Amino acid sequence: MTNAQVTLVQLDNYGPWTVTPEPRREADLQTMQSRLFADLSQFVGTREGYVFFTRFDNMIAVTNGMDREDHARLQESIRNRYPVTVSLGVGTGANPTDALVDATAHLQAAGSAQDADRREVLAGQPLDDAERTDEDVRIAHFDVNDATGKYTDELDAFSTFVRIEQGYASLMRALHDDHGGLAFFVGGDNVIALTPGLEERDYRDVIERVRDEADMSLKVGVGSGATATDAGMAAKHALEICREDGTTVEGDLRN
Amino acid sequence: MTNAQVTLVQLDNYGPWTVTPEPRREADLQTMQSRLFADLSQFVGTREGYVFFTRFDNMIAVTNGMDREDHARLQESIRNRYPVTVSLGVGTGANPTDALVDATAHLQAAGSAQDADRREVLAGQPLDDAERTDEDVRIAHFDVNDATGKYTDELDAFSTFVRIEQGYASLMRALHDDHGGLAFFVGGDNVIALTPGLEERDYRDVIERVRDEADMSLKVGVGSGATATDAGMAAKHALEICREDGTTVEGDLRN
Amino acid sequence: MTNAQVTLVQLDNYGPWTVTPEPRREADLQTMQSRLFADLSQFVGTREGYVFFTRFDNMIAVTNGMDREDHARLQESIRNRYPVTVSLGVGTGANPTDALVDATAHLQAAGSAQDADRREVLAGQPLDDAERTDEDVRIAHFDVNDATGKYTDELDAFSTFVRIEQGYASLMRALHDDHGGLAFFVGGDNVIALTPGLEERDYRDVIERVRDEADMSLKVGVGSGATATDAGMAAKHALEICREDGTTVEGDLRN
Amino acid sequence: MTNAQVTLVQLDNYGPWTVTPEPRREADLQTMQSRLFADLSQFVGTREGYVFFTRFDNMIAVTNGMDREDHARLQESIRNRYPVTVSLGVGTGANPTDALVDATAHLQAAGSAQDADRREVLAGQPLDDAERTDEDVRIAHFDVNDATGKYTDELDAFSTFVRIEQGYASLMRALHDDHGGLAFFVGGDNVIALTPGLEERDYRDVIERVRDEADMSLKVGVGSGATATDAGMAAKHALEICREDGTTVEGDLRN
Repeated sequence: MTNAQVTLVQLDNYGPWTVTPEPRREADLQTMQSRLFADLSQFVGTREGYVFFTRFDNMIAVTNGMDREDHARLQESIRNRYPVTVSLGVGTGANPTDALVDATAHLQAAGSAQDADRREVLAGQPLDDAERTDEDVRIAHFDVNDATGKYTDELDAFSTFVRIEQGYASLMRALHDDHGGLAFFVGGDNVIALTPGLEERDYRDVIERVRDEADMSLKVGVGSGATATDAGMAAKHALEICREDGTTVEGDLRN
Repeated sequence: MTNAQVTLVQLDNYGPWTVTPEPRREADLQTMQSRLFADLSQFVGTREGYVFFTRFDNMIAVTNGMDREDHARLQESIRNRYPVTVSLGVGTGANPTDALVDATAHLQAAGSAQDADRREVLAGQPLDDAERTDEDVRIAHFDVNDATGKYTDELDAFSTFVRIEQGYASLMRALHDDHGGLAFFVGGDNVIALTPGLEERDYRDVIERVRDEADMSLKVGVGSGATATDAGMAAKHALEICREDGTTVEGDLRN
Repeated sequence: MTNAQVTLVQLDNYGPWTVTPEPRREADLQTMQSRLFADLSQFVGTREGYVFFTRFDNMIAVTNGMDREDHARLQESIRNRYPVTVSLGVGTGANPTDALVDATAHLQAAGSAQDADRREVLAGQPLDDAERTDEDVRIAHFDVNDATGKYTDELDAFSTFVRIEQGYASLMRALHDDHGGLAFFVGGDNVIALTPGLEERDYRDVIERVRDEADMSLKVGVGSGATATDAGMAAKHALEICREDGTTVEGDLRN
Repeated sequence: MTNAQVTLVQLDNYGPWTVTPEPRREADLQTMQSRLFADLSQFVGTREGYVFFTRFDNMIAVTNGMDREDHARLQESIRNRYPVTVSLGVGTGANPTDALVDATAHLQAAGSAQDADRREVLAGQPLDDAERTDEDVRIAHFDVNDATGKYTDELDAFSTFVRIEQGYASLMRALHDDHGGLAFFVGGDNVIALTPGLEERDYRDVIERVRDEADMSLKVGVGSGATATDAGMAAKHALEICREDGTTVEGDLRN
C-alpha cells in the first residue's frame, strides 16, 4: 500500500472569466495558464512534490510533505500575482486514484467549479507527519524506445504527436483502470505515473497492452520514496539503467 | 484553399540535456518548459500568431505575418535567457497538414533533433506579403457541451481528464485523417484546430464521429482571417453564438 | 536634435492595491513587479525599444517604432494576465527630458495615479512614420572602470552598492540638469542614458563631474539609430572599444 | 542585538557573459535579470525570507530559517532553468552590516566575481535552529509622505524619480554609516531596511537627516520577528498606523 497525498488545484470560475466581458485573446490565456502552472511546479517542486498540468484549469499535484499552511501560502501567492484564484482539495487513500477521488470530493462538496461565490476553498486533510513513511510515494517514469529515431526524425511533427498521444491514451487507461494509477504526459516522449506498489509483471502487462493497442514500445523506471521528488528521481535513475542495459522494467518493484 | 504558415519549434538536443550529467529534477524541467512555451506564446501571440504546446520539446505555431527576421529575433531571445536553444522550420501548403509536413522536412533535412551539432537552424520560407490574403488562416474552436456540469463537478478529476483526452484523441484523428486539419488541446475543455476551408457538413461529421467514438458532445465556432488571432477571435465569437443559441456549428463556413 | 519617443508606464492605483484589504506580502509584490517589468521589457524590446524599471510602479520606455495599436495591445496583455492594469502616456520632444515631460503631462491630465476611476489611459501621440529618421534615438552606455577589481571583489556588497548608487546619482543629475538626458541604472555597474546629441566634450564634462562628486571613474559608448535597440547596440559596441583601447568616450558623437 | 542571516547572491562571471561572443541585447538581459530576481524572491519569500534586487548581478537576501540544503536547492533550480549560475555566501553577525560583511567575505575568499572557474560556490554557515529567536530580524519599512500628491501627480516622471532616488541615497547612508542597517529601495516610494534594534530616537534622527539632505519627508513602521516575513509584515502594519494616525514612527522599538 502506498500513501500518496494528492492535491487537486482548480482555478475558480475560470471558464466564465475567459469570455468576460468578451472572449480574451487566446495567446494571453495560454501565457497566463502556463506561467501559473510553472509557478505551481516551482513552488511544489522545491518542496519535493510534483504538479502535472493536466487540463491547466484543473491540475493534479503530489504533495506529500506539504501541510495546510503550505497550501494556504500557495493560494495567497497566486491571489497576489494573478487575475485568478485557485481552490485546493487535498486527498489521501490506499492508492493514487482513491486519493484523487477524495481530493475531488472535497472541492465538489464546496460548490461548482463555475460557482462565482466559491473561491479559494482549502479542503481536505494532509497526512500527519506521524503517518508518513519512506515508501509513501511510488513513481513510474515511462518513455518511448527510440522516439527520436522512429518518430521525431521520421514523421511530420503532427503525426509524431498523434502517435505519442495514442500511446499515452492507452497507457493512462491501462494504469487507471487495472491498477489505480494516474499517468501524466510531461512532454517529449515522457509519461510520469503515480502508482500503487506494482510488481514487475504488472508493468510488463501495461507495456504489452500499449504495444497492442497503440503499436508503441515503452520502457519504465520505478522508484519509491517519502516524497514525489525522492520517488521520481529514483525512477529517473532506474530508467537510465533501462537505457544503458536495453531492459524494459527497472527499479523498486514489489515482489 | 487556405494558406496557413506553420512553424515547427524544436528544442535542440533536449532529451540528452535533461539527463546530463545526470537526470535533472522534473519540477525544474516542467517549470522551464512551460515558461519557454509561455514566452513563445507571448512573442508570437502579440504578433497575431498562435503557438500550441504539443510535446513542449516540439511546439507548433501558426505564424502568418511573421517574417524570417521575427523568427531570428525569437531564437536570439531564447538563447539569451534559457539554457537551451531552438530550431525553427517554417512551412506553407494547401492545407495545414501539408504546411507542417513542409516545416518538419526543413528541420529533418538539417539533422536529427538529437544531433549535438545541429543548433538554431532557421529553415523554410515565410509567405511573401504579396501572397497573403484575408482568408489565409481558418481556426475552429471546439468545446464540450456542459463539461463542468457533466464531468468536472460529477466525476473525479482524473476520470474527467480521461474523458476529455479521449474526446480530444478522437477529434484530432478525425480532423487530421479526413480533412488535413491540426487540432490542439489548449486547456479546460477547449480544442483549437487549424483547418482548411471546411463546410458545415464536415464539422457535423467530425462532431458526430467524436460522439460515436468517445461519447462526447461538442460544439464549434469557426473563423477566418489574415492571421491566427483574427481567425481565432472570430472563432471565439462564433462559439459564443453556439452557447447563446444552443447551436452546434457557427461561423465562417465554406459553402 | 533627437526625436525620442518616450512612454511613461504607470500602474493604476497601485499603492492602495498593495495594502487592500490589508498589506500584501512583500515577496509577492516584488515578484509581481519584476515579472511585469520583464514582460514589458520583452514586449517593447522585441519591437526595438527599451524599458527602464525606474520605480517599478512608474516605468519609462523608449518606444520609437511603436504605434498606438502596439501600446493598446500591451495594455490588453497586462490586463489579461496580471491583477493590475497600466496607463500609458506617450510623449515626444526636442530632447528626452521634454519628451518625458510631455508623456507625463498626458497621464496627469487624465487624473491622479491613485484615482480609482482612472484606468488604462492611453494618451499622447506616437511619431508619424514620415517624421522618423535614422538618428532619432541616442543612447549612451556607461560603466565603471574595473568595478569588479575595485569594488565587488574588495568591499562588502553593500558598500559596493552604496558606491555604485552614489556614482549613478551624480551621473543622473549631471545628464538631466545640464543636458536634458535621462540616465537609468540597469544592473551591475551599468547606466544607460537616453541623450540628446552631445559632443565628446559634454561626455567628458559629465564623467569629470562624477569623478569629483562620487570619486568614481566611468567610460561611455555612444550610439544613434532609428530605435533604442539600434542606438543601444551601437553604444555597446562603442563601449567595447573603450574596454579594448582603454579610452573614455567612443562612438557616434556630435561635432 | 539582532541575529539576521544574510545571503549574498552573486551571478557567476556575469559581466563577461553579457558581452560574449558579442554584446547581448539589453532587453533580453533586463528580462532575464528581473525574472531571475523574481524567482529568487518567490523561492526565498515563500520560505519567509526577503530578497532585494540591489545590482541584479549581486542581490542581498535575508534568509533566517533557510538552511544549507535550501540554499543548494535554489542554486540547482537556477542552474536548470537559466543560462547563468549563482554563488551564495551566507553570513551572520551582531548587526546586518556585519552579517553582510561576513557573507561577502565568504565569496571573495572563494575567488573573483569574474573568475571563470569559480562557479556555484556555497559558503558560510546558516544559523543553528538552537540559536534562533523570535527577535532575530528587524525590518523598518519607510515611505514618503504623500508621494503621489507631492511628486507623481505634480512633477514629470524623471524629476519625481530623481527626488525619490535622492531621498533613498540619503536614507541608505544614514542607516548604514550611523547604525549598521541596510536599506533597499523596493519600488514606488518604499524603502525597506534591515536594521539592528534601534530606538525611536534613532529613527527620528535618520528621518531628520533625510529631510535636511534631500528635502523629503518620511515615515516608518518597524517590526521584529524570527524571519523577514514576520518582521516585515509587522512593519507594514505599523506603517499603516502611521498612515491612519498621521504619526512618523510606529512599531516594535527598542527602549
